[in-house]
This record gives sequence, structure tokens and C-alpha cells, in this order.
Amino acid sequence: MNARQVVVYDGEFPMHRGGTLLNPTFAYETWGALNAARDNTIIIFTGLSPSAHAASSPKDPTPGWWEDMIGPHKPIDTHRYFVICVNSLGSCFGSTGPASMDPRTNEIYRLNFPVLSLEDVASAGREVLRHLDIEHLYAVIGPSMGGMTSLAFEVMYPGMSERLVLMSTGPRSMPFSMALRSLQREMIRRDPDFKDGNYPPHHVPLAGMRMARKLGMITYRSAEEWRLRFGRERTPTDQAGGDPFGLVFEVESYLEHHAKKFTGQFDPNCYLYLSRASDLFDIAEHGATVEAGLAHVQAEKILIIGVKTDFLFPIYQQQELADGLTKAGRQVEYVALDSLQGHDSFLVDMDSYRPIVSKFFS
Amino acid sequence: MNARQVVVYDGEFPMHRGGTLLNPTFAYETWGALNAARDNTIIIFTGLSPSAHAASSPKDPTPGWWEDMIGPHKPIDTHRYFVICVNSLGSCFGSTGPASMDPRTNEIYRLNFPVLSLEDVASAGREVLRHLDIEHLYAVIGPSMGGMTSLAFEVMYPGMSERLVLMSTGPRSMPFSMALRSLQREMIRRDPDFKDGNYPPHHVPLAGMRMARKLGMITYRSAEEWRLRFGRERTPTDQAGGDPFGLVFEVESYLEHHAKKFTGQFDPNCYLYLSRASDLFDIAEHGATVEAGLAHVQAEKILIIGVKTDFLFPIYQQQELADGLTKAGRQVEYVALDSLQGHDSFLVDMDSYRPIVSKFFS
Repeated sequence: MNARQVVVYDGEFPMHRGGTLLNPTFAYETWGALNAARDNTIIIFTGLSPSAHAASSPKDPTPGWWEDMIGPHKPIDTHRYFVICVNSLGSCFGSTGPASMDPRTNEIYRLNFPVLSLEDVASAGREVLRHLDIEHLYAVIGPSMGGMTSLAFEVMYPGMSERLVLMSTGPRSMPFSMALRSLQREMIRRDPDFKDGNYPPHHVPLAGMRMARKLGMITYRSAEEWRLRFGRERTPTDQAGGDPFGLVFEVESYLEHHAKKFTGQFDPNCYLYLSRASDLFDIAEHGATVEAGLAHVQAEKILIIGVKTDFLFPIYQQQELADGLTKAGRQVEYVALDSLQGHDSFLVDMDSYRPIVSKFFS
Repeated sequence: MNARQVVVYDGEFPMHRGGTLLNPTFAYETWGALNAARDNTIIIFTGLSPSAHAASSPKDPTPGWWEDMIGPHKPIDTHRYFVICVNSLGSCFGSTGPASMDPRTNEIYRLNFPVLSLEDVASAGREVLRHLDIEHLYAVIGPSMGGMTSLAFEVMYPGMSERLVLMSTGPRSMPFSMALRSLQREMIRRDPDFKDGNYPPHHVPLAGMRMARKLGMITYRSAEEWRLRFGRERTPTDQAGGDPFGLVFEVESYLEHHAKKFTGQFDPNCYLYLSRASDLFDIAEHGATVEAGLAHVQAEKILIIGVKTDFLFPIYQQQELADGLTKAGRQVEYVALDSLQGHDSFLVDMDSYRPIVSKFFS
């Protein structure tokens, strides 16, 4: 059973950097109930890869990607709040993206999809709210790429939300993470099976996707965690099988196993578009500077959580957000965590995150 | 003109992890002159990619990879010391490696080259010294992979050297850098032009090599340096040319340019062997533990320089070396630098390195 709901946009949906989508679909899931005042909604924008299935529900009891965070009496308490998680526009889990059919051509968009921006992902979220007749939000929450989407939402629809939660994100992408993402895209695009984006559905550029995922996994965690977790352990049986460069160390075997698991699910073209959308985001485009951009954010209370071992959105970017938003007159709570799990901490170090989020919402 | 000299080993050169090489060649360059006591030699083991051409000389006036460090009145003063730099066994700049002809088969070794260890690279250095009739060293110097080779040399030939300089290295490879190297190898091996190592010399797996080099460049420097250097600058002319995922940002263009420059020079099979040799190195194999391994080092005075922004050999590994060698009774000077240039600092932040090395050798 699937808890996914969809809004079909009526007409031409304008894209931030030009072009339109005809009648696009925006997928989402919800938990809890809207109150009579229609002001208890929390909307969640996701990182690059998750679907809208952030938590289980009667309609779909499978665990969601943020199962520990969302539910009755959990930090994002579905007894009190109406929680919406949106599958990003451009993704491939129900929302329109490069893997969808373009109704104007009756062909899959592929690389004819217009340039995707996180502003478009935010607009799609706004359409979901309009469809549900919600004009006021209790909070917007965004981890990672979703944090940048949340910032876009805040500057595009100022005053809609009382609160804002940003996790492991930044006011814009910086060259280290852009270089990593550029290389991930290159791995996919150089896979002979990519065929300039025209791969058949049953023959996607798997090798490129797996390597891109491995690089993601390497940079989503931290060197220190891996030191403690794998050390220099060898694989129990020699999986190399005569190959002088086969898998020998546990850490290699771990990457291979998890990369294989991931890459059956995510459409390569969608990955490319969302990856580039992350690179393109810069709050300074909504003002002359980062500070001027952040000054448009009107949420009264803001929680910022960063992790000191994060490679992709380093801790100084969390500080930059906290400083800019404080200067703009917002009430900011800034937490810098020592979690070992790097960028992924918000997904795994729940013992650190639960109490902070609970307190912010209580 | 080439300043390269070679030693041809007479007979079967035994490899640390099994197998032998028949009549291998060890390439090296020298600067300065051996004194009458034959005790003023400094031997340098290199990182993964450099040749033995560490500095210019009358025979080869082109600048070397450590030009600022080696020469008359420079920190490694060729008026005082006889300096030898060895091209690593397994490399492709004069020393025997996977790109060399196997005299037993009259075919290029390729993946039939035996497993390469840094212990073998150290042994080859020992053979160069034997050939030059040098039984006593003033110092052994090794940055990066060369630091691990230097440690191997120290434990295999204890007491030969008075001093030891280790830069941006560690007592063994840890899973974060091993994962990165494993992925670099995969990029090369999955390039269709790799052909299981049997690529023709004019058609090497260039795309894979370039991606591996890009990942190297990303991890050799630091996020902070790139932030200051590139920010979010775009390329002056749009190099994308209609390609939705072409080069847009300066950082992408920089990587592309430098990766292209590198990959004409280095043989892919040699790269794979040296990369794996780095993974395999563990001083604990020369004792039950890292500490026991380090206890075999007998150089009296040791200089250890590390950089706080180094991803590949993080600063804690420098501390681990300093602690272990101090505990073993060695006289250790440990410097932790704030250089922005990450792992590559020893090649570029010369204003920080010169005075430290000068002082150690004066």
C-alpha cells in the first residue's frame, strides 16, 4: 500500500531559470490532521535522494527515512501537527522529473527537462499547500539540500511560516561540494550505458551510478567514524578472486554492498538534475549578498543544527546561517554537534537530534 | 637532457608479498656530492605520482617537483648534502613497473606484475644506496606515500640513518583514504578503454584516469582553500555549449584543465599498483601493533610535519607518529601546520615548510 498523494498542476508551471512544465505532478505524504485554525502544518523538504515517505502510517506501514523523528509523541509530533513531506520536483518518486513523460511530446523528458532550481522545488511545495488550502505554516524543515529548498521557500513566500528548522545545510553551495557533485555527475555521464541520457529503463548506467553513490557515501560520513567502524579489517572471505584490485578491505566491501542497494532505485537523469540544482543554489541571488538574501527570511524562530564532521556543508556554513539570520532580527537557536557521522548525522545520530527538535517544537 | 641515472639489479629481486622481478631497474637523480666520510647523504622517497626529478641540475635545468626545497643554500642544501631522490619501484619514470617489459616473457607486465608493497619501494632505494656504496645516511625524507616508504625503510634497515623527516603521512592507511583510493581505482578499471589492463599505449583509459585525478585533486587540497580561491565564480565563457551538465563553475573548469594535464603522463596500471600499495601499508605488520612497529625506528632525530586541513592523512595520524616515536625513545620535533592547502601543502605552502626543514638540517 502506498500513502503517496499527488497534486496535478493545471497548466504551465513556470520554472525559475526559464521554461515551463505542462501539468506537472507533485507527490507528497501527510501524517496527523490539520486543525480547525489550519495553522498546525509542518512541511518537510528532503535531501537529494529520499521520497516523500518520511515515516510510516496506517496506509503505508513500512518505515520512512525519518521514522525516528516523525510520529505520535515523537519530536515532530503527529498528534499535534499536520506533517507534510514533499517529493522534490525533479525527483522520481511520484513528482514530475526527467524520468516523467512530457505531455507535450509524449516522450520522457530526459535531458530535455528544463534547468531545475531549488526554487522550483519550493514552488512545487507551495502548490501542494495551496491544494490543501493551507496559507499558514507552523514550520518549514529542511535537512541538507532540503535546507536550501527551505531557504528558497522562506524568501519566496515570506511570512508564511512561524518557524524554520535548517539541518546540515548552507546559504549556498561552495566549491568543495560542487566539485564532488560535478565528479559524481561525470561518473554517470561517462558510463557508456548513459547514452547521453537516453538509456532504456532496464539498462541504466549502473556502474556510473554506483561509483557516484560510493563517492556520496564517502563524503556523507566522516573519516573518524570509518576509522572506528572498519579500521583496516579485511573481508572475511577474499572476494577478490584473483583480481589484483578486487575487494580486500571491509570498507571496500561495505561501499560495494550499499552502492548496489541504492542504484536500483534512483533514475540517473533525475540524480543529475537534482545534483546540479544543489550547485546552483545561492541565497545571494535573492539579494546582493548572502546577508541580504537571509534578511528576507521572516520565520520568527529558527533552529539551525550543524555537525562538525560534515564535509559537504561544513560547520562554518551553519555559523554563517546563524549569524546572518540573527543579524536579520530572527530568534536563532544554533547547535553545533560533535556527531561522528558527518553529513548523514541527521539520519542516524538520532539520540543527538531528537531532544533538540523535541524541545524546539514543545 | 635528462639527469636520470639507473641501477640494474642483477638477478631476481624478491618482492615483499611474494614473487620476484628479474633484473629490475631503479631510477634516481642526485644533487650535490658525497663527502669523503660518505655520511652526508639524504635520500628522498616520493609521493605516488612524482618522478625522481625533485629539483633542477646542470644536466636537467627544468624545475623539479620540490624545486623550492632542494638546491644550494636551500633547506635541503646541496652544498652540504648529497641528495638522492628515487623513482618508486612500480612507477613509470625509469623504475621498473607494470608498464615495463618483463624479460622473462618479453611482454609488458601489466596486471601480471606481482603485488607491490611500499617495503619493495624501500628495498629498491636500499639497492640504489648499495650501488653507490653508501652504508650510512644523514637523513631519510618522505612526504605522503613517501613517508610510509620511509617508515618501511627505517624498520627494514634500522640504524642506517641519523635522521628522519615525515610529512603528511601516517603509520598506516586508514579506511577513509582507502575508500577514496579504491574508488579512484574503480574509475580507471571501469573505463571501457582499460580492457583489463591490456590497453594499447596510444589508447589508455583517459576518462577514468582523469576522473581519478579529479578525485585526487579534490582530496589533496582543502574546502577552505577552494572557497577562497574559486568561491562560486563562473567560467568566463560558457563552456557548457548546450550540454546541461557541462562546465559552468570555475572549480569544474580548473579540475578539468589539471586532470587533462596529468593524465598524459602516468601509466594507469602503475597508478593502480602504487595506489593499492598505499592501502596495504601498515607499520603494525612490523610488530604486533603500530607502537611496536614504530619502536623499530632507530633514527635519532625525527621531524614530523602535518597539516590540520589534510583529509588523506589527518592530523591525528601525525600525532600518532609523534607519540609512538617519542615513546620509542626517539627525539621528535612535531609541527602541526594551519596551511590551507590540505594534503598538498608540502608542495605549495613553501613559506611554512622552508624554515622548519632549514632549521632541522642546520
